[in-house]
Amino acid sequence: MIEAPAATPGDRPTRRLLIDCDLHNNVPNVQALFPYLPALWREHITQTLFKGAGETSYPKNAPTTARPGSRPADDGVAGSELALLREQVLDPLGVEYGILNCPYAIDSLHNPDAAIALASAVNDWQIAEWLDQEPRLRASIVVPSQLPALAAREIDRVGQHPGFVQVFLPVRSQLPYGSRLFHPLWEAIARHDLVGGIHFGGAPGNPPTPSGWPSYYLEEYAGMAQVFQSQIVSIVSEGVFDQFPTLRVALIEGGFTWLPSFMWRFDKEWRNLRRLVPWVKRPPSAYIREHVRLTIQPLDAPSDPRHLVQIIEQLGSDDLLLYATDYPHRHVADPAQDLLAHLPEPLARKIAVENARAFYRLPLNSEE
Amino acid sequence: MIEAPAATPGDRPTRRLLIDCDLHNNVPNVQALFPYLPALWREHITQTLFKGAGETSYPKNAPTTARPGSRPADDGVAGSELALLREQVLDPLGVEYGILNCPYAIDSLHNPDAAIALASAVNDWQIAEWLDQEPRLRASIVVPSQLPALAAREIDRVGQHPGFVQVFLPVRSQLPYGSRLFHPLWEAIARHDLVGGIHFGGAPGNPPTPSGWPSYYLEEYAGMAQVFQSQIVSIVSEGVFDQFPTLRVALIEGGFTWLPSFMWRFDKEWRNLRRLVPWVKRPPSAYIREHVRLTIQPLDAPSDPRHLVQIIEQLGSDDLLLYATDYPHRHVADPAQDLLAHLPEPLARKIAVENARAFYRLPLNSEE
Repeated sequence: MIEAPAATPGDRPTRRLLIDCDLHNNVPNVQALFPYLPALWREHITQTLFKGAGETSYPKNAPTTARPGSRPADDGVAGSELALLREQVLDPLGVEYGILNCPYAIDSLHNPDAAIALASAVNDWQIAEWLDQEPRLRASIVVPSQLPALAAREIDRVGQHPGFVQVFLPVRSQLPYGSRLFHPLWEAIARHDLVGGIHFGGAPGNPPTPSGWPSYYLEEYAGMAQVFQSQIVSIVSEGVFDQFPTLRVALIEGGFTWLPSFMWRFDKEWRNLRRLVPWVKRPPSAYIREHVRLTIQPLDAPSDPRHLVQIIEQLGSDDLLLYATDYPHRHVADPAQDLLAHLPEPLARKIAVENARAFYRLPLNSEE
Repeated sequence: MIEAPAATPGDRPTRRLLIDCDLHNNVPNVQALFPYLPALWREHITQTLFKGAGETSYPKNAPTTARPGSRPADDGVAGSELALLREQVLDPLGVEYGILNCPYAIDSLHNPDAAIALASAVNDWQIAEWLDQEPRLRASIVVPSQLPALAAREIDRVGQHPGFVQVFLPVRSQLPYGSRLFHPLWEAIARHDLVGGIHFGGAPGNPPTPSGWPSYYLEEYAGMAQVFQSQIVSIVSEGVFDQFPTLRVALIEGGFTWLPSFMWRFDKEWRNLRRLVPWVKRPPSAYIREHVRLTIQPLDAPSDPRHLVQIIEQLGSDDLLLYATDYPHRHVADPAQDLLAHLPEPLARKIAVENARAFYRLPLNSEE
């Protein structure tokens, strides 16, 4: 049983070692990709006034979208400047590594050639303007996830760059990620020893709930936890982890307090119905604890910290959680203050750095 | 904090008073409805060999579908005989009241006239062959939930029968139940002082996950908890409880251990985004604790009973849970043994009888 320490500010160092597993580098505008796009697409974008596939899940003026000061001057796009990221996160928090998740909505593009061209351009932009500029950064490869074989080809194109540790997959999708259709994508992720990073959001065209289109952004936001759950049900049930035993999957920006009760239900129904999926040889929770990790921001925390400590204990493993700020998004809870401060130091340290170091294979010294 | 009693069999009476909030009366075959159908539909069914809208969520030979002995002779449909229901549940468990949920899949019928005719026939069949035969029974009105105004008309037709305490709404739907389109249905439920009983299953035609069609029944079964969550997000966010302040909603056969973390997330995002839904004046959890109840079978229980006791405490109210056997469906957990036996007696008694009595307005003495 976890013994929660008395949470007084003096109990912990004001600055602890951190690996931040969810930072956002947003493309400021489609013209920023021009140096990385073929002439055909530069011409097409210029002539059609196409604005690119900007992030769809965080509307520009929603209160959750940008913390104060994260917009560059002249009303720029929050999270689009490396200097601000250094100034607001990497330096003040003492981040050893920060993992970039560029939420460019490639999955919203129904023109497959545009999806491929823009995904490649975003990756080359990430290499040139982020990874090669800042040794503390790692990043997720942006792919046309709706076209798994072509996504695999993009992973093959850039997967050997040492800055890429993950492939970005929007949690919303038109078909469940466990489907046989996605196996070429999982195969490429596993072959390059990358992480499949399933991230909040997506714009595949189908409703974000199993009951049709909601009316309000609040519904989509609160309901995104259910989309994460549906993807893990699919991935485990279809035997993706049996087929790719070294595969690792991160659930990013989807909360984690739902995980214990989700595993109880999934395990129970697997016991009832496992003859339908005979390749799933262990309870689903065993696959999840081995292959899946979750970032801790946003923190769907109860008002009573004692309940949060209970949930952490119910996870049944100290390896599952990864620290993240989710910069530049704005949330009411501070994960360091509202979660780590309530945990015993060895567990807090695992969440802050050690779990991410092991999962993303990050060498001990960031000054490489 | 809940003090869990030492769970030895001697601690509790072998037979406690029970109100069973989820019993299934299945239509054995469409011909059983002939006495309650107009000549046009009897002729149509006979000539087209239409088999009716039998339950779709529990396939006949799935291990979860029927407990041993619940099928009538000659390979009949489990749950279709009152005598067996008396013999297997009402008498041996000493049930004071049992609430019938007939899962006839009216929502799967795309012909609106068929949907209306069959719903009315099922309700008249319920009155004649169940409610008028057994004073311990209450039932849910079956309606064409996909046609809210016509569903309201059916509620007006039979809602005054004292046996009906609830309206059956399959949790899967093509549009979220909070939508303005459903307000005529909620208005009728509230006006007749009935409960809206949102129940496992449904066959509306759209996928049961927010990520498209799953491949296996296990995925649909385990994932159904997410469908319940999506409906509650919609109902609260659209202000259904603000518009119908006396409305009560039961979540039936969807589990409950997911509720605490769900309320934490929903409350948190409401704090972030409540300006989008200004009519939602209190945190969503306050609406849920006032208006919503949940049946306890299936019990998505952890292997450690201590964790289950933690979840019960995290609910933040002793009023929310309703005892149910879910007869004739078969589950691995016995809610009396695996849940009630671990709770202090006053709370166990609330779950076993008192919460249901208050919620469904059931008079103290069943010998009316």
